[in-house]
Amino acid sequence: MMENQQDWVAVDWGTTHFRIWRMHGDKALEGREASCGLLSLKREEFEPTLKEHLHGWPTESPVLMSGMVGSRQGWQEAPYLFLPVSLKDVAIGAVDVQTKDLQRKVHVLPGVACQEESRPDVMRGEETQMLGLGAGSAEWSGMICLPGTHCKWVKVALGQVQQFDTYLTGELFSILRQHSILRHDLEAGDVDAEHPAFAKGVSTGFVESTPLLTSLFRVRASSLLLDRDPVANLAFLSGRLLGEELRSATQNIEKTEKIQLVGGSSLTKLYARALSLVGREVDLHSGDDLVRLGLTAAWQFLYPQTE
Amino acid sequence: MMENQQDWVAVDWGTTHFRIWRMHGDKALEGREASCGLLSLKREEFEPTLKEHLHGWPTESPVLMSGMVGSRQGWQEAPYLFLPVSLKDVAIGAVDVQTKDLQRKVHVLPGVACQEESRPDVMRGEETQMLGLGAGSAEWSGMICLPGTHCKWVKVALGQVQQFDTYLTGELFSILRQHSILRHDLEAGDVDAEHPAFAKGVSTGFVESTPLLTSLFRVRASSLLLDRDPVANLAFLSGRLLGEELRSATQNIEKTEKIQLVGGSSLTKLYARALSLVGREVDLHSGDDLVRLGLTAAWQFLYPQTE
Repeated sequence: MMENQQDWVAVDWGTTHFRIWRMHGDKALEGREASCGLLSLKREEFEPTLKEHLHGWPTESPVLMSGMVGSRQGWQEAPYLFLPVSLKDVAIGAVDVQTKDLQRKVHVLPGVACQEESRPDVMRGEETQMLGLGAGSAEWSGMICLPGTHCKWVKVALGQVQQFDTYLTGELFSILRQHSILRHDLEAGDVDAEHPAFAKGVSTGFVESTPLLTSLFRVRASSLLLDRDPVANLAFLSGRLLGEELRSATQNIEKTEKIQLVGGSSLTKLYARALSLVGREVDLHSGDDLVRLGLTAAWQFLYPQTE
Repeated sequence: MMENQQDWVAVDWGTTHFRIWRMHGDKALEGREASCGLLSLKREEFEPTLKEHLHGWPTESPVLMSGMVGSRQGWQEAPYLFLPVSLKDVAIGAVDVQTKDLQRKVHVLPGVACQEESRPDVMRGEETQMLGLGAGSAEWSGMICLPGTHCKWVKVALGQVQQFDTYLTGELFSILRQHSILRHDLEAGDVDAEHPAFAKGVSTGFVESTPLLTSLFRVRASSLLLDRDPVANLAFLSGRLLGEELRSATQNIEKTEKIQLVGGSSLTKLYARALSLVGREVDLHSGDDLVRLGLTAAWQFLYPQTE
């Protein structure tokens, strides 16, 4: 297949960030970024914001966007596509955004959802990262772990998203650290994944030798009784929550299957270490360019040829 | 045994509350309360505060206090007694508090702790409530559930505390409600324990049909996809956390054994409902006077006779 070599514009627009690239086929010629995420914008400000960041670039190139910009709280909703769905269909399901001033096509990728009443779940943005991994190929199969505030575990078979689960682990860690009684017992810095307390936390969670809700209070009790230091407490808490997640997230994955771990988040190294502690092998994918690569893959599905 | 009929003073002094009673033997003749908890006091302010609230009462009656006033952050630390420990020994282990002006004896009850490295845990205040239940009697045995921000499950055999576990359930519910992404999806009022979503939450947690960290995110996803209303979401979240707690807290309790549920907290009715949903019977104990009754029981152990 001849690849599309047109000029176009890729946009990654989330709740707090905005990144935009001037593209020629699969090559990024120029990039810009800003902090104008959804949280800082009213609905009528999206188009002027995009226009401002397109300044000086070719005026006719179409735009493909991904992220929360396509949510109900964004510029224009691109409704979720429901499981099972191929990543190619997500790409070609991009929604046309209504514009007032801009004299060019603007598309936004939809999110993916599971509407089964027993396991409702949503993603928006991760589908683009998976396209960036190459998982939209009709030959691609695997289990993908995308760490983040809300970590996703996604089962893809032959380019089709079949099932996924979201874990609130990252957010729970963050609010326990900031708002709970444990906050006085936890080091302020980064988690040390090499600390023995991290490994202890992972194994406690993975075999559930202590229930989660009890483990949490014991972080406090350990400080009072055993003088465990804040660095160890922080490592234990992080490991304990990750172990809890891995206990269920890995239970239906064959021991021999490598997990596709998406990098880019500072959490990735914690996931890599925790997975290694529970005897799982990973393929680590660099995450820095994944959204742009995903937008490029989506672009090729959407505009499959030019000549 | 002839009971002690002396005049004395009972004090329940926690992080945010202060209650004091003028006692004659086991009778409360007069009570006062104030909001001068630990959080509002410097160390040197405890004695003047107590003195102020003793105003007009007999000047020689000894004082027995319970609660966080005996913690390291309180007036004077009454170090934890370690498991296994009889509740009678907790009572007679009351520590003499050093005073400057007050010309009377002032005692504070110690807390109880488990120092095993695999299950460190602490309580301070609950030992007094258990004394109020009568659990200090050498004939008393049972499993006691004391709901609260940090719920305690305590195994007592023949008046001796043998084992206990603390669950962070109440605090976790509160911080998820205030600080997590779920906050927009949750009703602001009280939990409706009769709502079908509460029962669904309890059963989901009790059999762990969905992992906790996934259940939490699904509260959000349910709002987005299934239009589940905030009242149902709140009931589900509360039930889900309680079900998680009960799954482990009840696993080593014989099905035929009634659980001794301590009332007084607004959480008690939620625990009663959740326990009933998982097929457990309870003896519900009124909690309003439990601390005063516990101080009275402790007093009788401490000053066993007067004539």
